[in-house]
Amino acid sequence: MLELYHAGLTACSKKSRLCLKEKGLSYVSHLLILSKFEHHRPEYLAINPNGLVPALVHDGAAIYESSVINEYVDDAFPDMPLRPSGSVEKARMRLWTKLADEALLPNMVTTFSRAGSVAASAKELDDKTLDDVLSHIPLKERRDIIHKVARGGGFTADDRKNAREKAKFIVDRAERDLSSKAYLAGDSYSLADINMIPFMDRFHTRVVPDLFTAERVPNLFHWYQRVMARPAVIATFSPSEETRRPAAS
Amino acid sequence: MLELYHAGLTACSKKSRLCLKEKGLSYVSHLLILSKFEHHRPEYLAINPNGLVPALVHDGAAIYESSVINEYVDDAFPDMPLRPSGSVEKARMRLWTKLADEALLPNMVTTFSRAGSVAASAKELDDKTLDDVLSHIPLKERRDIIHKVARGGGFTADDRKNAREKAKFIVDRAERDLSSKAYLAGDSYSLADINMIPFMDRFHTRVVPDLFTAERVPNLFHWYQRVMARPAVIATFSPSEETRRPAAS
Repeated sequence: MLELYHAGLTACSKKSRLCLKEKGLSYVSHLLILSKFEHHRPEYLAINPNGLVPALVHDGAAIYESSVINEYVDDAFPDMPLRPSGSVEKARMRLWTKLADEALLPNMVTTFSRAGSVAASAKELDDKTLDDVLSHIPLKERRDIIHKVARGGGFTADDRKNAREKAKFIVDRAERDLSSKAYLAGDSYSLADINMIPFMDRFHTRVVPDLFTAERVPNLFHWYQRVMARPAVIATFSPSEETRRPAAS
Repeated sequence: MLELYHAGLTACSKKSRLCLKEKGLSYVSHLLILSKFEHHRPEYLAINPNGLVPALVHDGAAIYESSVINEYVDDAFPDMPLRPSGSVEKARMRLWTKLADEALLPNMVTTFSRAGSVAASAKELDDKTLDDVLSHIPLKERRDIIHKVARGGGFTADDRKNAREKAKFIVDRAERDLSSKAYLAGDSYSLADINMIPFMDRFHTRVVPDLFTAERVPNLFHWYQRVMARPAVIATFSPSEETRRPAAS
């Protein structure tokens, strides 16, 4: 039995929801509401001591970090492999997985300021409640960002400039790799693509829309159009029962 | 044929040198002198466009990022596997690999200020030469750190505090995992251990020696003593022909 704890339409949750859907695996979905800080509650920290989403529980074993979850899923369910068969292509896939991890910061700069985000919600709290929330966040890096957005004046012009440069670096690297290959790690759709899709979507729509155009990066643009049309991507990105909590009855 | 481009006794170079030695694989060693910025020369950027060491060239294919190199080596040479056989243990190994990647910053705070380091060497350059050096560093994150150490006053008290907290987090996580297992990912020595050893050594000797004691973290301390006694670890950590460039004859 597979259970996924996730936050619906956030980037890292999309990564693992997409991987499970591409594999055709069914799972019990547990939606956590980040703006209510449900990912810092003791019962969830017992599953993921880092207090981040997503986390996968498979026959009692808890796996966390979306990149690690996705390789785990492909290890544990080898049918319909999502990793290339060649060792060199596997290495390229893992280079892209590392870049997906580094795409988190540019992503945060645009999303953590938006209404409904965990950081925006923290801003509304009184000092005492905020201190209590912060004291339950296991990772210092996250604690610092939430504090920065809630009380520290938010992201600076420098943060936004750095985020933009990192996004440009990733966009240009993708354009280079896709100039000779159909997918990021080679000729087959793989975890390289799956791990990058949620971030490329944010880059295209919010972080660097001016740099992510058909004229400037034609190979990446066509890859983006192709992958966004996949049924599993559409199912992952669309609001659904999995991404909405029903009103209390 | 395997060729390793590396910087000898730096942490990430040790990771991949150790992996190759544990596998019993022989390789042609190419030592790059970081303080001469040899890793930013065009001929090396053709191998690793990120301008970082190490990089592995195997039958013409270039693989870079030490964590990616190490999984590649285990994929391409499956004898004497360095990854656990179980999927859950593989996921634990990859969680540790991610933590090793995050250990880079605490490591830099202590090493980039030392004489002979790339950052310390940059400090000695005149403005024009420094600008030239910076213009050849592909990754903005690295460019920023070199500039910070060379001209920006170096690491701050806050940087050192963050480095210490991150090191403490990793040390305590290791103590927890090693309380029930002989090695970081389970009962067998794996890439989890190999990827962490160079950083744990720095943590023990320089970053947080006061927190990394037999009294405070007994399981980690005993793991450290055990792994440091391995022949491949001794060979990797000892100065040798591989880590010294002979004087020009």
